[in-house]
Amino acid sequence: MNELLNLSLTEVHNLAVEVLEKNGLGSDHAHAIAKVITAGERDECYSHGVYRLIVSVNTLKQGKVNKSALPEVIDVAPAVVKVDAKFGYSQLAFEMGAKHLAEKAKKVGIAALAINNCYHFSALWPEVEHLASQGLVGLALTPSHSWVAPAGGTKPVFGTNPIAFAWPRPGGDPYVFDFATSAVARGEIELHRRSGKAIPFGWAVDASGEPTDNAEAGLAGAMLTFGQHKGSALSCMIELLAGPLIGDLLSSESQAFDAGAGATPCHGELILALDPKVFLGADTEANFGRAEKLFEQITGQGARLPSQRRFDARARSEKNGVFVPKKLLDDILAFINR
Amino acid sequence: MNELLNLSLTEVHNLAVEVLEKNGLGSDHAHAIAKVITAGERDECYSHGVYRLIVSVNTLKQGKVNKSALPEVIDVAPAVVKVDAKFGYSQLAFEMGAKHLAEKAKKVGIAALAINNCYHFSALWPEVEHLASQGLVGLALTPSHSWVAPAGGTKPVFGTNPIAFAWPRPGGDPYVFDFATSAVARGEIELHRRSGKAIPFGWAVDASGEPTDNAEAGLAGAMLTFGQHKGSALSCMIELLAGPLIGDLLSSESQAFDAGAGATPCHGELILALDPKVFLGADTEANFGRAEKLFEQITGQGARLPSQRRFDARARSEKNGVFVPKKLLDDILAFINR
Repeated sequence: MNELLNLSLTEVHNLAVEVLEKNGLGSDHAHAIAKVITAGERDECYSHGVYRLIVSVNTLKQGKVNKSALPEVIDVAPAVVKVDAKFGYSQLAFEMGAKHLAEKAKKVGIAALAINNCYHFSALWPEVEHLASQGLVGLALTPSHSWVAPAGGTKPVFGTNPIAFAWPRPGGDPYVFDFATSAVARGEIELHRRSGKAIPFGWAVDASGEPTDNAEAGLAGAMLTFGQHKGSALSCMIELLAGPLIGDLLSSESQAFDAGAGATPCHGELILALDPKVFLGADTEANFGRAEKLFEQITGQGARLPSQRRFDARARSEKNGVFVPKKLLDDILAFINR
Repeated sequence: MNELLNLSLTEVHNLAVEVLEKNGLGSDHAHAIAKVITAGERDECYSHGVYRLIVSVNTLKQGKVNKSALPEVIDVAPAVVKVDAKFGYSQLAFEMGAKHLAEKAKKVGIAALAINNCYHFSALWPEVEHLASQGLVGLALTPSHSWVAPAGGTKPVFGTNPIAFAWPRPGGDPYVFDFATSAVARGEIELHRRSGKAIPFGWAVDASGEPTDNAEAGLAGAMLTFGQHKGSALSCMIELLAGPLIGDLLSSESQAFDAGAGATPCHGELILALDPKVFLGADTEANFGRAEKLFEQITGQGARLPSQRRFDARARSEKNGVFVPKKLLDDILAFINR
């Protein structure tokens, strides 16, 4: 059995900062990333928790990420701000850009933040939740590497192209979803491969384009989108909006840029923010009530809102701290010679 | 065999105007609607073609639609415009609002058009294609009536909640999709019911929440979303953005408002426009080229872009006119005593 060690959220944060800084990452970047790693561990999204420090140190060692990049904020238009991440991690660029994005949305009603040239680090929910915490509706999109075939095809074109959305709920956790437009996350297929398990048909096709339940063959072939032609169309939309629209790489270009290193994908990200107060004025409160009525129609029949499991985990972790496998912690501590 | 009659697109348009005007619809509305009916027939989207005149005359006879409503344009903020359709049809409101939406997007980069209190008439693709024809990226969302259960539930909450998107392609048809977030259109289940055919499992549950292949039972129960929990999350997002965010009805409220009349649903619509030129400046052309590279990755492997069938039909109809079943045309001509 794997022993679990109890850490407070502050301990997780400080550990992450120390590991990242000792591996050469600039302090501002280390703090920004430690924040989302702590949030991931807190919400029991383990692949985005302290485990991600291992991925990150490996990526840093490959020397591709600009460890001390100073993101540049570019005010493009009254409703558009860009941040050039200068080939550093995305998180600091997001923090710097989000401030301007929120200001613009509050002023003009809807605004866009384009982050360019970033190694995209986290899930997208921390970003849309950040906007929701300021009373804004948030939508975030990124490409990744071209692993996913379009509907009707068998060759990989799209990334796993996630989409995340948050709606602020006064006095409670926001309504949030964050999902890949591939049938499953690529990591899920990798887990099946490692444990020698078959994958369900519908997740992938093999290199000759035939449906497969073999994880290895699926990884060598192409993943499929969720929801057939509809999921494929959405994935294409995400690729267009978070690629060409903001002057950044397609998933296929991002993969070529990686050149087989297997690092965190480098590409762009598009984040939209909408201010309900601008749209609604004096009717704001009544319409937040209307949204609550919708949520009640869902939960009142026993269905769950997306992210509910994550918010439950969050409440637990904020009370009791988190429990990290000793073996994982030992691997991480080895990075700082402890 | 059903005889087909060949009509030019101008004949279709003039017929639609005459039928609508003779049934009491104001001239501006009749012309705006004739335009989308002609486009639907031209693209061989028969449910949105001349057939829709029958639905429309029936709705007009119910007396709910304000036949001569003068939509009011409200300039809300630099990136937000609203049009109060005053309980008339949506099409004229869209035409009036789209002009302001495009101006705003070109000025500030991204903008939103909220249409309120409208009987939503058409598919959404005419609206996003209209924006694409001006070089803008378009996204459109509406609720409908609460027919669709959320993932994990069995009671109807969401509308069929369509989403449409268009990306302008210089010198060609835009990249466009327009689909319901329900597993299928409600009309598809109705067609199965009328012809006594079973529906595939996954389209609907019966009134007791059990999976069903009986169309009648599915219509009495709840439709399901496409793509399980992911489609359900998207449907909820559409409901929030095209409902509470713009101060308009949820699908359940729209259904209550209809009070069993079975008229075209009355609710709001949200349309976003993004101007690539603002986002990209001098890099615009290069990035439209990048988008073309993406489309080539899709079509180059034999997969089809969404709407391709529609564009093929359009090319045929623009050359040869359209072919309308005599029986359908007779039913329509009866409305104008011919």
